[in-house]
Amino acid sequence: MNLEVLREATRAQMPEKRWRHTLGVVDTAITLAHRFGGDPDKAELAALLHDYAKAWPISRQEQAIREYDLPPELLEYDKELWHAHVGAWAVREEHGVDDEEVLNAIRYHTSGREYMTLLEKIVCLADYIEPGRDYPGVNKIRQLAEHNLEEALTVGLDSTITVLLERGQRIFPLTVLARNDLIRFRNEHKRTETIGG
Amino acid sequence: MNLEVLREATRAQMPEKRWRHTLGVVDTAITLAHRFGGDPDKAELAALLHDYAKAWPISRQEQAIREYDLPPELLEYDKELWHAHVGAWAVREEHGVDDEEVLNAIRYHTSGREYMTLLEKIVCLADYIEPGRDYPGVNKIRQLAEHNLEEALTVGLDSTITVLLERGQRIFPLTVLARNDLIRFRNEHKRTETIGG
Repeated sequence: MNLEVLREATRAQMPEKRWRHTLGVVDTAITLAHRFGGDPDKAELAALLHDYAKAWPISRQEQAIREYDLPPELLEYDKELWHAHVGAWAVREEHGVDDEEVLNAIRYHTSGREYMTLLEKIVCLADYIEPGRDYPGVNKIRQLAEHNLEEALTVGLDSTITVLLERGQRIFPLTVLARNDLIRFRNEHKRTETIGG
Repeated sequence: MNLEVLREATRAQMPEKRWRHTLGVVDTAITLAHRFGGDPDKAELAALLHDYAKAWPISRQEQAIREYDLPPELLEYDKELWHAHVGAWAVREEHGVDDEEVLNAIRYHTSGREYMTLLEKIVCLADYIEPGRDYPGVNKIRQLAEHNLEEALTVGLDSTITVLLERGQRIFPLTVLARNDLIRFRNEHKRTETIGG
């Protein structure tokens, strides 16, 4: 598994715009890893591969979910969520990426989940704030990301849930569980600070 | 089980303001039952009892959850949700209310859940729109409730989720599942209309 080979293979899966986004997520994930004590190499690899299957035709994504025992409840939810699980499966199958931490960071970069690892948080947040992103509230998330990974990610997930509410679309339960868990983490952290101080 | 006895017993559990709210929910639930083909007697009973334990001291609610095998994950979430399950347990224990449909309408009137029955929807919506309620968006929900139970309830749940987002509080997963299910119901209904038309 050679990083340069993976770069070219990933680039070949997507149009130029998606590739520029990917490079933005890579840079941001490496920065966040350095900032918050994560592993920059794993952050780079997971960020590079996070959207591997994003530009695949939906029929190909659906086929992968059905044929390769990916979580069937994915098919019940927004197609936006499919590529994350399909991508993790594809980079393992096609390129032998077998680091479960990296694969989980790819799998959960869109939805989040409970008990996210540091690497999962980094990739998910990098995807929200890479320099090419432009949506209401992104600068607030970028500011929070300067010093607080969990707060920044919470506000990122808030923005996702808010958009789905406004559009009358269903909300992926894992996203709510991820946010609840981050709030629990924050509250416990505050309690610890109070006890410590 | 005599309705007049239940009325007096319920009134004795709560301050005057909560009792006025209860009477508003009773009237509204009966109206909604007539409007949407529900059972007005069951709607009246469930609405009368829905906040039976709402004014109980939190310690008494917590004790009931721990001692009587109510769902322990309730303790992880907002205390606002406890009284619904505690109330359903209490009216069965103290007054022999044993209609599972009525008990579930009490249990899920705050959170909602997937696959809500007509009675559960009626009581949950009546709680959102009884005449004493005043919050941003309540009149829109009242207007929707004139003709579409599911749409009205969806917007009600939206308002709950929005408030929790704004306050940085955790969202009860059942509320999201309830909303997702109502949206699925709406989409399938639209598809049926399209096929039928």
